[in-house]
Amino acid sequence: MSVANSMDVGSAVSKVSKRQYEPYLKASWGLLNHWYPALFSSELGENEVKGVTICGVPLILRRVHGKVHVLRDQCVHRGVRMSIRPMCLTDDTITCWYHGYTYNMETGRLETIIAAPDDEIVGTTGIQVFPVEEVNNLIYVFVGEPGYEPIPELRLDLPPKLENPVHPVAHPLDTDTMILGVRRTANANWRLGVENGFDPGHQMLHRDAAIVLARDTALPLGINPTDPRAITAYEDEDGPKGMMNEWNSGFYDLVMANERLNIKAAGNNPTVGLRTSMYLPGVLMVENWPAYGLAQYEWFVPIDDKTHEYWSVIAAKASTEEERKRFQYDFDYLWRDQALIAFNADDVFAREAMENFYEEGGPGWDDEQLCGMDAIIVAWRKLVSRHAREIQKPQRNPSPKLAE
Amino acid sequence: MSVANSMDVGSAVSKVSKRQYEPYLKASWGLLNHWYPALFSSELGENEVKGVTICGVPLILRRVHGKVHVLRDQCVHRGVRMSIRPMCLTDDTITCWYHGYTYNMETGRLETIIAAPDDEIVGTTGIQVFPVEEVNNLIYVFVGEPGYEPIPELRLDLPPKLENPVHPVAHPLDTDTMILGVRRTANANWRLGVENGFDPGHQMLHRDAAIVLARDTALPLGINPTDPRAITAYEDEDGPKGMMNEWNSGFYDLVMANERLNIKAAGNNPTVGLRTSMYLPGVLMVENWPAYGLAQYEWFVPIDDKTHEYWSVIAAKASTEEERKRFQYDFDYLWRDQALIAFNADDVFAREAMENFYEEGGPGWDDEQLCGMDAIIVAWRKLVSRHAREIQKPQRNPSPKLAE
Amino acid sequence: MSVANSMDVGSAVSKVSKRQYEPYLKASWGLLNHWYPALFSSELGENEVKGVTICGVPLILRRVHGKVHVLRDQCVHRGVRMSIRPMCLTDDTITCWYHGYTYNMETGRLETIIAAPDDEIVGTTGIQVFPVEEVNNLIYVFVGEPGYEPIPELRLDLPPKLENPVHPVAHPLDTDTMILGVRRTANANWRLGVENGFDPGHQMLHRDAAIVLARDTALPLGINPTDPRAITAYEDEDGPKGMMNEWNSGFYDLVMANERLNIKAAGNNPTVGLRTSMYLPGVLMVENWPAYGLAQYEWFVPIDDKTHEYWSVIAAKASTEEERKRFQYDFDYLWRDQALIAFNADDVFAREAMENFYEEGGPGWDDEQLCGMDAIIVAWRKLVSRHAREIQKPQRNPSPKLAE
Repeated sequence: MSVANSMDVGSAVSKVSKRQYEPYLKASWGLLNHWYPALFSSELGENEVKGVTICGVPLILRRVHGKVHVLRDQCVHRGVRMSIRPMCLTDDTITCWYHGYTYNMETGRLETIIAAPDDEIVGTTGIQVFPVEEVNNLIYVFVGEPGYEPIPELRLDLPPKLENPVHPVAHPLDTDTMILGVRRTANANWRLGVENGFDPGHQMLHRDAAIVLARDTALPLGINPTDPRAITAYEDEDGPKGMMNEWNSGFYDLVMANERLNIKAAGNNPTVGLRTSMYLPGVLMVENWPAYGLAQYEWFVPIDDKTHEYWSVIAAKASTEEERKRFQYDFDYLWRDQALIAFNADDVFAREAMENFYEEGGPGWDDEQLCGMDAIIVAWRKLVSRHAREIQKPQRNPSPKLAE
Repeated sequence: MSVANSMDVGSAVSKVSKRQYEPYLKASWGLLNHWYPALFSSELGENEVKGVTICGVPLILRRVHGKVHVLRDQCVHRGVRMSIRPMCLTDDTITCWYHGYTYNMETGRLETIIAAPDDEIVGTTGIQVFPVEEVNNLIYVFVGEPGYEPIPELRLDLPPKLENPVHPVAHPLDTDTMILGVRRTANANWRLGVENGFDPGHQMLHRDAAIVLARDTALPLGINPTDPRAITAYEDEDGPKGMMNEWNSGFYDLVMANERLNIKAAGNNPTVGLRTSMYLPGVLMVENWPAYGLAQYEWFVPIDDKTHEYWSVIAAKASTEEERKRFQYDFDYLWRDQALIAFNADDVFAREAMENFYEEGGPGWDDEQLCGMDAIIVAWRKLVSRHAREIQKPQRNPSPKLAE
Repeated sequence: MSVANSMDVGSAVSKVSKRQYEPYLKASWGLLNHWYPALFSSELGENEVKGVTICGVPLILRRVHGKVHVLRDQCVHRGVRMSIRPMCLTDDTITCWYHGYTYNMETGRLETIIAAPDDEIVGTTGIQVFPVEEVNNLIYVFVGEPGYEPIPELRLDLPPKLENPVHPVAHPLDTDTMILGVRRTANANWRLGVENGFDPGHQMLHRDAAIVLARDTALPLGINPTDPRAITAYEDEDGPKGMMNEWNSGFYDLVMANERLNIKAAGNNPTVGLRTSMYLPGVLMVENWPAYGLAQYEWFVPIDDKTHEYWSVIAAKASTEEERKRFQYDFDYLWRDQALIAFNADDVFAREAMENFYEEGGPGWDDEQLCGMDAIIVAWRKLVSRHAREIQKPQRNPSPKLAE
């Protein structure tokens, strides 16, 4: 782990500094050659077929004998999406509904054409197959260039297992982890999603959230880094690439009042969730939020350059059936609506409000006037620019629609 | 009649071949100087006024003493469509609702201005008048360049009278023909409509249509040309320009099963409609469909580069009042909903699914991977490139809206 | 006052003439450095906050202790509109809801940041503040370039006080004036609004309006200038810049019949409102309309290059409480619905019908074929080209949405 030295912000984001994150500025369609969640496991039953779009790439998912297969969701013949009218005649193939171009699910190879079984094109072409991993209710897909090798391990695109002796939380890959969550489409570029999620200065946006008021939490008005050491960067070769803010590290000033405006943080109970971190390709981890022992993870999965699929999930340690039932109960009656839906709706509102300023051709990336607390965001931009495996090229717009 | 030698497809659609249909690739706004249906006769009552758009050209239609007149639906003054608020003060003029620019319906000449009868511009300008023919419930308009001469006969833009000794069918221009049908707007380029309509490999798309199941028809899974003689081209100087597929000619392989996928054509009764043909500017004829003795005709009339008006009609021989009543009855209770609406809804679905791939700027025309059965489509593209009287230039987008 | 010599129209709008109004042709986003109405006073209560967009510029309005303040409605930090989630913590500041960037309402200066009170950016930046005047129920904003000086008096962007010994009407700035009205968004460029409002040839558009029929008014079919003196231009250095048509001046031919079409103006009562005038930046005055003693004023306020806020108000002389009550009663039960809503709906219809022809990139400005009565419109285009303080540059499209 290294320490970021990226406290330059505001007018202090000099041209020199901006050049250090130029790749990020070009990444409106997302980062290629990374793992992204595509569906909750519970959304894809046995033999079910669904289509999603990630980084502008149309994907078709099918589960057979429990195993999920993912292929490019575009027939090579006339370019239609196959998932809009699923047709699967054998366990090992996917067939296009239009003329019957039929692809092997393991290799993507064109196996036959219903309307022309002996056509000489059979066997000579095919569609891309994508690596899949399914762990703890999430189906992850490696959205990569054709032929990209070797496929990085999934763990490299997830938060690391952080040490936390006092309040340990569940990691997405642990065997005793249980994950429940929601996803929704936000009308904003994925980078605005990430920057909003990891932003130490937007707490006041949530001050009226029912879950904050109900628990009488003294949510700070803002959090300001006071030392370069405030930001811990993760750049080990064999680990996830990311950054952490530890609000209680002593390198942050928790703003509890603003004298000029005569306001102070309401609430009497200390806030929780004071260690947040973000990893490529855009995975947020908030430890001990919404409660001690839990962790909230979020993904901001690019659909196209104007929309992203916003995933917010809560992970719990749950080894026994009783623990699983209890977490499911808490999720159904409390966390789902109060934390994930309502609290985070403020964040979606903020991202969508920024979109017009930052969208392709907009003045935002040049005209924004950042301040000290945005050092974290600038550091993130540079980190992505250093470690993104590839910047996705502009795709067609709008992307094929995401299946509901 | 000649025989097409256009069996090159798939990767076999070489660059040389593609150059042979470059005009077709530029024809996103349709073919100019051709006849198109504009309205059903029953849609335009005496003294009624309606507006339609064909190849991006706004047209205003008015019927006076039974005769239909068509003019450019755009006042020269401030450019408004006149049909959105029809104003006709005499039998021989159309007046713009805004300032009263009044045009002679025969000549298009500016005859007077209500608000300025003596203005010196009167008589010096006007709008284009379009040739009209009305036959058997269809109002055809010649959408041509100003001054194009001579106006080709309507019959040259319709299927020829095909000989069919066993099951003769009605021709659109015959005096004992009765035509009933529907039209709807499809969100796809007109060429995708034509190619879908004439495509010998898309039968499986219709396998679940109620009319197929109800009649227990053994619809083939696909139809493959096995010999260049499979495609008959019509290129006589004094006739319509088009192409015919005769499925039972011996030059086609009717695919009734696919062993790899273990499926076969369901149904026990032989299919009908085994002779289909397509003519410029995009008129499909399916003989003996939906039943022996009937013929289905379809037009794919460009509205703009993204939408076409899809016409599907059934023609019957009906000389007597009783025959006419019977056909009307069959149409109302069977053919309209089961054949034209439901069966062809699958085709509209397919065209709209292709649009994103083939739309202006899309990769479809370059990236499509055709196979043997698409030889027919490639031959069609070349035929259009050879015989289109003119390619319509890009017009403004979106086109003025089609009157309902 | 001078007399316009601008009777060149139709094909007579030569290239030389068109060059005389080139600035007008570039003014699709409106005229900068002018006063525009932003809200009715009654729409902005004490401590209320609203956002509007004028010439593509987002504006936030707030009333404190009765006084209205207007600032640029875009936080310098991340570019969001502040008015979509108003946050005002003190009487002299406006705070952005996202991170608490807080601006002084008098100076626009960044006073503090809630989340970072001591940030070094505080005091070094800010947002533009706009001059405001509030008179007789209208809140006017001077939409100017930053630093434009001196601010012109409001009266210079309103009609002058016209002498009218017989039927004097109320001026927007008079102390005994009462103004009531409506505003709506029209989907057309603001110039089409102005040209429609001031057009002497569009009377026939209104011939079926209930208020015309109910009063049996002999609305002329058109009005034609017969002499250059028909148009009076106002170009005094110290006055509003505008133009007047006095229909009864003897320099106009009121068209009451058209023999070719065998129609004549219906109604038996003389029309009212026979003196209309238009001033920069687009303010229409119709004296003695909708009745003697009243005046209708209209503004066509650019929102972006495709939409304008259409203001139509009626001004009455009302010194006493009884006169005010009576005018309010007439407005509520007669003028609002019959004159402003219904009668002027025809005008909105016409403007929106022109938009496709004249929109950015459309052929309208080149292809329109004007006639004699359009001399007034051509004169207006030249007047604007001579006197517009500045042409607004193209802004981002679509403009931030206007608050309802």
